[in-house]
Amino acid sequence: MVGVGMTKIDRHYDKDMRSLAAEAALKALDDTKGADPKAVVVGNMMSSSLYQQDSLGALVADAIGLRGRGALKVEASCGSGGHAVAVGYSLVASGLYDQVMVVGIEKMCDYPTSVVTAGLAQAADAEYEVVYGASFAALNALVMRLYMSRYGAKRESIALWPVMMHENAVHNPYAQLRFRVTVEAVLRSPVIADPIRLLDAAPIGDGAAALILASEEVARKLSDAPVLIAGVGMGSDALDLASRQDLLDPISIRYAAKQAYAMAGIEPRNVDVAEIHDAFSITALLSIEGLGFAEPGKSWKELEEGRYRPGDKPSLNPSGGLKARGHPVGATGVYQVAEIAMQLRGDFPGIKCGGEIGLAMNTGGVATLTTVIVLRR
Amino acid sequence: MVGVGMTKIDRHYDKDMRSLAAEAALKALDDTKGADPKAVVVGNMMSSSLYQQDSLGALVADAIGLRGRGALKVEASCGSGGHAVAVGYSLVASGLYDQVMVVGIEKMCDYPTSVVTAGLAQAADAEYEVVYGASFAALNALVMRLYMSRYGAKRESIALWPVMMHENAVHNPYAQLRFRVTVEAVLRSPVIADPIRLLDAAPIGDGAAALILASEEVARKLSDAPVLIAGVGMGSDALDLASRQDLLDPISIRYAAKQAYAMAGIEPRNVDVAEIHDAFSITALLSIEGLGFAEPGKSWKELEEGRYRPGDKPSLNPSGGLKARGHPVGATGVYQVAEIAMQLRGDFPGIKCGGEIGLAMNTGGVATLTTVIVLRR
Repeated sequence: MVGVGMTKIDRHYDKDMRSLAAEAALKALDDTKGADPKAVVVGNMMSSSLYQQDSLGALVADAIGLRGRGALKVEASCGSGGHAVAVGYSLVASGLYDQVMVVGIEKMCDYPTSVVTAGLAQAADAEYEVVYGASFAALNALVMRLYMSRYGAKRESIALWPVMMHENAVHNPYAQLRFRVTVEAVLRSPVIADPIRLLDAAPIGDGAAALILASEEVARKLSDAPVLIAGVGMGSDALDLASRQDLLDPISIRYAAKQAYAMAGIEPRNVDVAEIHDAFSITALLSIEGLGFAEPGKSWKELEEGRYRPGDKPSLNPSGGLKARGHPVGATGVYQVAEIAMQLRGDFPGIKCGGEIGLAMNTGGVATLTTVIVLRR
Repeated sequence: MVGVGMTKIDRHYDKDMRSLAAEAALKALDDTKGADPKAVVVGNMMSSSLYQQDSLGALVADAIGLRGRGALKVEASCGSGGHAVAVGYSLVASGLYDQVMVVGIEKMCDYPTSVVTAGLAQAADAEYEVVYGASFAALNALVMRLYMSRYGAKRESIALWPVMMHENAVHNPYAQLRFRVTVEAVLRSPVIADPIRLLDAAPIGDGAAALILASEEVARKLSDAPVLIAGVGMGSDALDLASRQDLLDPISIRYAAKQAYAMAGIEPRNVDVAEIHDAFSITALLSIEGLGFAEPGKSWKELEEGRYRPGDKPSLNPSGGLKARGHPVGATGVYQVAEIAMQLRGDFPGIKCGGEIGLAMNTGGVATLTTVIVLRR
């Protein structure tokens, strides 16, 4: 990886998809010594449902001055960004291209919340879940209730996650929610889908992030501090929750992690810093456990013990995570990889964790489509 | 490529996306000696706009018995299938997976034509074209009118394309429109968007096609007659026609072809048989010229001379093409590659062209997002 760029996550009413994507992409180009990407991979979820726009690869490629180059969009609902990075990696590692641009882009704020909520529900099963009235938050609430019941997890312990995320985001200039919250504030915030409350949930936001990937030979010319993609893993699960074997066993995360760890030749304990998927507080717990940072059912205990803060190994979500950095859904996975690359390079503009080995984990649906990307300095 | 499978293209009112995808995928698995794909790439355009369903990778992976494996969807509007093949190729050639399933799937017939037409218009520019009332056929009509005007192409000569396609499709058991038409019938058929008439346009249909790709080492174990993917190319163009340099210079096709020919070490004249994108008759002409089978402005003349029929070099669209085999949009590019593989293996169940070198060319939008895949026996 030879260049990264991102926009602040915000309500960008004055920018369309073209201009947001271009802002991030041009920053990524400026972060290199003259990169000239031969193809563009776009991660996006909702351009079709909200903007009636397909062919997003062409829209973005042209907007960033790469008309004519190969272009395509990757969709894996909220995990679209991570999957776009995996595809970008493959396009280079396969030898098809020596340089590729990956752009994650999502605009969500132009529409009322009801429309966006319906769009997000497309991450769930239209025939078996959504038609019965399930929102995406409601499906996650089922999982959270089961988690609390099976493991005896305390509601106030789980609230420690958003508190930590908001604390981290205060320092990140690209974050959407740069204010602190307390456990009491989380527990008093409005119920979204019981037991999930407003402050357990990632906000709706607009944003774009971009990466430039290159073969090892080209990378050395384009950057003084390239970051190595050492491991890539993908995993899936049943789309409808009712047909899963165990709602608390996130197999898509476990499988993706296993593949990425094996490829990188590392174990969970080797990870210095990670950005993980925390669309809801319960998602964070399952991500921590699926990645092997905690035993199943134990992550909430580790939060009580003050784990995962900056300086711990691993430090989790120094950006503020989906919860407070923000979650422009199809762009999030690209933000995560960009942030981890900057952590390893030492130039992340928020809390710096440093380290040699970083990880980004992004998932679509209720841990339905997961990618794990391992980076090395 | 070690296995292919496809469904008949038809109005499959009794099958949902899951069952259509599974039908094609299981045929592809049966076409191998025990393949076990480690990831699934889905090509699809309209599941979001018509069925409010994202996360299509998970839906298909689970439906075909590959729950847990890596999965994602690739979107490039009507070129989604070809781009999915390019991504599947990369996932194997990069070393990430030794076997990958590519599934193209589209269901279009459950909705009235007006809804499908609006969905197809998502291939064009929502902000600069569709908002002003342009349908996808209308945009292609502009191109056809310019073509006829600049090159003096006769309307009745262009009608020779659909006549040839319908003739070829009569022999293809998977084709949607298995009947012959005459030049007179084309010229008397209703106007869709002047000068495009009904019989110039691909029909609306449901279908799924699947491929299994494997590394060369694994391929030899899984098939007695693997087909080599010798070249892969991608190209794009401006999304909105108004900002193109020349509506009759299909740069996305030219660039994709150049890349694929160079990788395969061939020239256009080496191609024995090809499946090319002919959503409208004018699309066929631009495809033929963009691929270098004819000089710019000359393809309609070559139709007059009887070129491109079975037995010619190249033979074009022995399947019947999008025009008559059918065009389940996101699946079409996968059908094309499967058909060419069967041509080279000698077991295509329709008109057999044989040959050593085949090509599949698929595009989304008005030649906006193109892939060219070169296959070798």
